[in-house]
Amino acid sequence: MEEQRQNTAILLMHCPDQPGIIAVITEFINTNGGNILYLAQYVDRENGVFYMRVEWDLSNFIIPEEKIADYFDTLYAGRYNMTYGISFTRRKQRMAIFVSKMSHCLYDMLARYIAGEWDVEIPVIISNHPDMKIAAEQFNIPYEHIPVTRDNKAEMEKLEFEILKKYDIDFIVLARYMQVLSEDFINRYPNKIINIHHSFLPAFVGAKPYHAAHERGVKLIGATSHYVTTDLDAGPIIEQDIVRITHKDTIDDLVKKGRDLEKIVLSRAVEKHIQRKILSYRNKTVVFS
Amino acid sequence: MEEQRQNTAILLMHCPDQPGIIAVITEFINTNGGNILYLAQYVDRENGVFYMRVEWDLSNFIIPEEKIADYFDTLYAGRYNMTYGISFTRRKQRMAIFVSKMSHCLYDMLARYIAGEWDVEIPVIISNHPDMKIAAEQFNIPYEHIPVTRDNKAEMEKLEFEILKKYDIDFIVLARYMQVLSEDFINRYPNKIINIHHSFLPAFVGAKPYHAAHERGVKLIGATSHYVTTDLDAGPIIEQDIVRITHKDTIDDLVKKGRDLEKIVLSRAVEKHIQRKILSYRNKTVVFS
Amino acid sequence: MEEQRQNTAILLMHCPDQPGIIAVITEFINTNGGNILYLAQYVDRENGVFYMRVEWDLSNFIIPEEKIADYFDTLYAGRYNMTYGISFTRRKQRMAIFVSKMSHCLYDMLARYIAGEWDVEIPVIISNHPDMKIAAEQFNIPYEHIPVTRDNKAEMEKLEFEILKKYDIDFIVLARYMQVLSEDFINRYPNKIINIHHSFLPAFVGAKPYHAAHERGVKLIGATSHYVTTDLDAGPIIEQDIVRITHKDTIDDLVKKGRDLEKIVLSRAVEKHIQRKILSYRNKTVVFS
Amino acid sequence: MEEQRQNTAILLMHCPDQPGIIAVITEFINTNGGNILYLAQYVDRENGVFYMRVEWDLSNFIIPEEKIADYFDTLYAGRYNMTYGISFTRRKQRMAIFVSKMSHCLYDMLARYIAGEWDVEIPVIISNHPDMKIAAEQFNIPYEHIPVTRDNKAEMEKLEFEILKKYDIDFIVLARYMQVLSEDFINRYPNKIINIHHSFLPAFVGAKPYHAAHERGVKLIGATSHYVTTDLDAGPIIEQDIVRITHKDTIDDLVKKGRDLEKIVLSRAVEKHIQRKILSYRNKTVVFS
Repeated sequence: MEEQRQNTAILLMHCPDQPGIIAVITEFINTNGGNILYLAQYVDRENGVFYMRVEWDLSNFIIPEEKIADYFDTLYAGRYNMTYGISFTRRKQRMAIFVSKMSHCLYDMLARYIAGEWDVEIPVIISNHPDMKIAAEQFNIPYEHIPVTRDNKAEMEKLEFEILKKYDIDFIVLARYMQVLSEDFINRYPNKIINIHHSFLPAFVGAKPYHAAHERGVKLIGATSHYVTTDLDAGPIIEQDIVRITHKDTIDDLVKKGRDLEKIVLSRAVEKHIQRKILSYRNKTVVFS
Repeated sequence: MEEQRQNTAILLMHCPDQPGIIAVITEFINTNGGNILYLAQYVDRENGVFYMRVEWDLSNFIIPEEKIADYFDTLYAGRYNMTYGISFTRRKQRMAIFVSKMSHCLYDMLARYIAGEWDVEIPVIISNHPDMKIAAEQFNIPYEHIPVTRDNKAEMEKLEFEILKKYDIDFIVLARYMQVLSEDFINRYPNKIINIHHSFLPAFVGAKPYHAAHERGVKLIGATSHYVTTDLDAGPIIEQDIVRITHKDTIDDLVKKGRDLEKIVLSRAVEKHIQRKILSYRNKTVVFS
Repeated sequence: MEEQRQNTAILLMHCPDQPGIIAVITEFINTNGGNILYLAQYVDRENGVFYMRVEWDLSNFIIPEEKIADYFDTLYAGRYNMTYGISFTRRKQRMAIFVSKMSHCLYDMLARYIAGEWDVEIPVIISNHPDMKIAAEQFNIPYEHIPVTRDNKAEMEKLEFEILKKYDIDFIVLARYMQVLSEDFINRYPNKIINIHHSFLPAFVGAKPYHAAHERGVKLIGATSHYVTTDLDAGPIIEQDIVRITHKDTIDDLVKKGRDLEKIVLSRAVEKHIQRKILSYRNKTVVFS
Repeated sequence: MEEQRQNTAILLMHCPDQPGIIAVITEFINTNGGNILYLAQYVDRENGVFYMRVEWDLSNFIIPEEKIADYFDTLYAGRYNMTYGISFTRRKQRMAIFVSKMSHCLYDMLARYIAGEWDVEIPVIISNHPDMKIAAEQFNIPYEHIPVTRDNKAEMEKLEFEILKKYDIDFIVLARYMQVLSEDFINRYPNKIINIHHSFLPAFVGAKPYHAAHERGVKLIGATSHYVTTDLDAGPIIEQDIVRITHKDTIDDLVKKGRDLEKIVLSRAVEKHIQRKILSYRNKTVVFS
C-alpha cells in the first residue's frame, strides 16, 4: 500500500522477444536517476513474446513525468516494436462500480475501499436499479440510477459516458451488473472493464450459470473475473476459483456458496488491476505476482 | 477396509419420496435379524426423489442371500416404485482396467491394489497398445492387447466382451483410454464404466482439453471422473477437482500438473464405486459419504 | 433462509449410542402432529456417542412451545441420558459483535446482515476502541465503546454484561477482538462465543501468528473459527481454511491474504451457529451439513 | 524434461543484496559463450538478501565444466560474499529412497521414475524392514534391508553410508521412513535429505500426527515436505498442502485421506529438488517456479 502512494512510474510492455531488452530498459532508468523498485518479466517462448513490468522511483528521475513517454517512444518503442503503457502512482486511479440489485460484491469492495486496502478512488456508483442507493449513501458515494433496458441502451449509455467523463473514470468494475454493454461502450474501454461471471468459464457462458451447473450435476462451482470484450463472457481471464458442492446443494445453495466466491475472485482481479500488474495480449492475461 | 470384507448386504435405492420409507426398510432388516451398520439417505425435494444406502450385517440375517432380492421385490419395490440394487460384500467385485499409453492413472490404481487399499479384484488389464504390458507384468496381472481402431471397432469389441466375460468383470475403469467405446459396449455396462476426462467438464469436452485450456487462458485446470454414457464426456459426474496454473505454464506444464489431478480424481471415483456409495439418476450422481 | 423464518423447533442432542433413538424421537414428533423438515444424525462409534439434529414444523404440533422441553425431559432425556437443547426459529437469535480496530470481518458480517443472508438480529456492536463507530453508524447499529484493558477488565466486563443483557444477546462473535475475555465472561457463554484466530490452529497459538508463520517459512497460512473456552485458542474448532503463500510474501502480504481468509472462515462458522447446526462435545464440534 | 537432459549448467546462489549482481553474472555467462535459458531471482528486502537461479547452455561455453567454479570463485564469490552451488545437467542426479512399511509414497515415485517424469536415477532403495522388497523387485531396483533400531543405529548407519557411497548417491528421500536419523547422518547431507511429515507443520510435530489431529478436532489435515535438520520436523519447509475432513472421519479415514496428500506433497518437493529449484537459507526455502 505504502509503496503505491510513492511517486513512481510503472511501465507495462510486451514486444517480440529478443536478447538485451531488460538491459536496455533498466539502463535507461538507471542512467536517468530512477531507482528500480520492482521488475518482473516473462517470456512466452511458444509465441516469442517478451512481457515486462518495471516500477521505479521518480524522486531523482531527471526526465519530467510528462516527457517520459516521448523519450521512451523515440528511443525504444519503435526499435523493439513494443506495445506499452506508462502510468504514475502519484495520481490515484479512479474506478466506477456498476451494480444491479445484488450487494455482495459491492459491499466487499466498499469495505476494502473505506479500510484503505486499495490505492484507488471510487467517485461514483452507477446502477440500472435504485436498490443499491442505500449502500452508496452509507459510504457517501454518489449513486447514479440509469435505468438501462435493451430498448433504450444507446440513449442511456450516452448518459453513462457523461457520468464517466464527469468523474474522470479510469476503469470500470461490473459488480454483478446484469446488463450487456454495447459494443460501442466496450470499445471505449479496452481492458478497462472488469466483470465477474458466476461460473468456471468457459463452462456455463451466459445467463443462469448456477442453474446450468446444477442441471449438469457438477461437483465444483466456479467464478471467473475477466476483462469485458465484445464476445460475451469470452474476454481475457484474470482470476478464477472454485468451491466444492455436493448432490445435496440446491440451486439456492449454489447461489449462496457462489456469493463468497464471486466477491473474493472479483476483488483479487480488481486489486491486480489497481496495481497495474495485468498485461493483456491475444485474449489472455499475464498477471505479475 | 475391514468393514468391507465382512459379510454384509448393501441396498442402494431411489424412489418417489413419501413418508415412512426409512422406517419400513429398517424394520424389514431389523425384524429379520440384520444389524444395520450404515444408513445414509438424501431427499431431492425439488424433484421429490428419495435416495438411500443401507448396509447391514448378514451374520444373523434369516433370509438367505439369494432370496433377499425376491423378498424385497415382493414386499416393497413395487409398492414404493423403487429402483434398487442389492449387492453382497462377501464376494469381491472384479474390475477391468482399460489403458492406452499413459501410465500415471494405471500405476496409481495398481499401487493401491497391491497395498490392499481397495476391496476389489483386478484380474485383467486391456489395452489398444502394447506399451503398458510392462506394468501388468510387474503387478502380475494378465494383459490383453486388443488393437482397436475406428475401423475394426465392432470386431475388436467382440474380443473384449469375451475377455470381460472370461474374467467375470463387474465394472470397467478407463485409465486415460484413448478410444471411444461403441454405443453397444456402453449400453452393456450402464453406470459400470468409469472414465477420467482431463478437464473441468463441461468445459473442454472432447480431444486435447489441455490445449484448449491453454488457448483460452484459464487460471485453473480440472479433471472429471464420470460414468460413460453414449453422449461423449456428458455422463453423470462422480468427482472433480482442479489445480491452479499461471500464464507461465506451457501446454506441457498443464499435461504434467494434470497427471496428478487425473490420478487422484479417478481413484477417488473408483473407490466410491467399489464401496457402492454412488447412485446415479437423471444423469447426476448421489455420492454418499 | 425461508425455512428459518418458519415456525419450527430445532432439537440438538447427544447421548450414549443405543438402538432405536431415532425411531423414538421421530415418533414423538410425528405422533404429536409435527412435520419433520430436516433430520441429520451421526454416530461416533469410537466413543459410542449418538448426535442428532431434528427440525420440525410447529404449525400443527399439539404440544405448546413452552412445554416441549418439559415433555421431552420427562419422556426421553433422563431415560437416554441425553444432553440436549431445543430452540425455536420463530424468534430471531440476537448476536453481538465485539471488534477492535480491524474492519474486514465486521463489514463482511454487516453486509450479509443488511442483505438478509442471515436469520439473525445484530442489535449492538461492542468495542474496546472508538475506531469502528463509523461502521456501526453506517449500518445504524448502536456502538458501545468499552475501553477494556488488562487492568480494568473486571469492571469493564461488568458494563459489557449489562449491555448484553439490555440487548438480550444470545451469542457473541469476536470479529478480530484483540482482548482476552475473563474466565468469568467465558463461563457465562459456553459455546456461545465464536472467535476467529488468524492461523491454522493448533499451529501458531497466541499473538502474532502471521509473524510466526513467516518466521517458520510455511507455504500455506490458515484461519480458524472456534468457540471460546478458558484455554486460549484451544476451544472446539468450527471451521478452518487456508491460502497458499510463497517465499515472496512478506508479513504484510500474509496479513493481507489472511484478511480474506479470516472473514470467510468466520462467516461460515457464524452461519452454521445461526442455523443451530453445530453440536459441541468433548472440545470438538459436529457440524451438520 | 527435455530441457533437463541438455548440456546445461545451473547456478544457485544467494548473497547480500546490492545493485548490479544480475548484470555481472549474466555478462559473465554471455561473454563466455553461454546462452541463458532460465533466470529467476528474488530479493528478500527485509533481510537484504539476493537469491538467483540461472541455467545456461554449455554447448558453446568456452570455460570447461571443471573450471567454471574456479573462475566463478575468483571473480565473484568473494567479491559479493556469495554462497553458491553450480551443477551440471549432463550427469543425472542419483537419489536413494528410504522406506519402512508403507508403500504409497514409494510407488508414487517409482511410477514417475519408470514413466520418465523425473530426470533422476534411483539406483537403490534402503529400508529398516523387508516389506517393500517386492516393490523394489517389481521395478528392478536393488533393495538393501538395514534393520536399524534405536540401539544399533550407529552401526547400521555405517552400513548405510557405505551403500550410499557405493551407489554414488546425491540426495535421499525419506518416503515415510519411520526411523530418526542420527545427527551425524543428517550433517553429512545438509539440504540433501527430503522428508514427508504427515501434518501441517508446525502443528503436530512428532509421532502420530493423525491421532493428534483427530483428538484436537481440526477440520483440515495437512502434509509437509521439508529438508531434514537435526531439529525434529523443524527443517526448511519445501511444500505443504491440506485436505478437508469432517467430524465423521475416524483416525483410519485421516490415514487414508492423508496418503494421497503425502504422496503428492512429497513428489512435488522431490521434483523441485531434482530441478535444482530450491534454495535453502535461514531455515526457509526459496522455491523458484
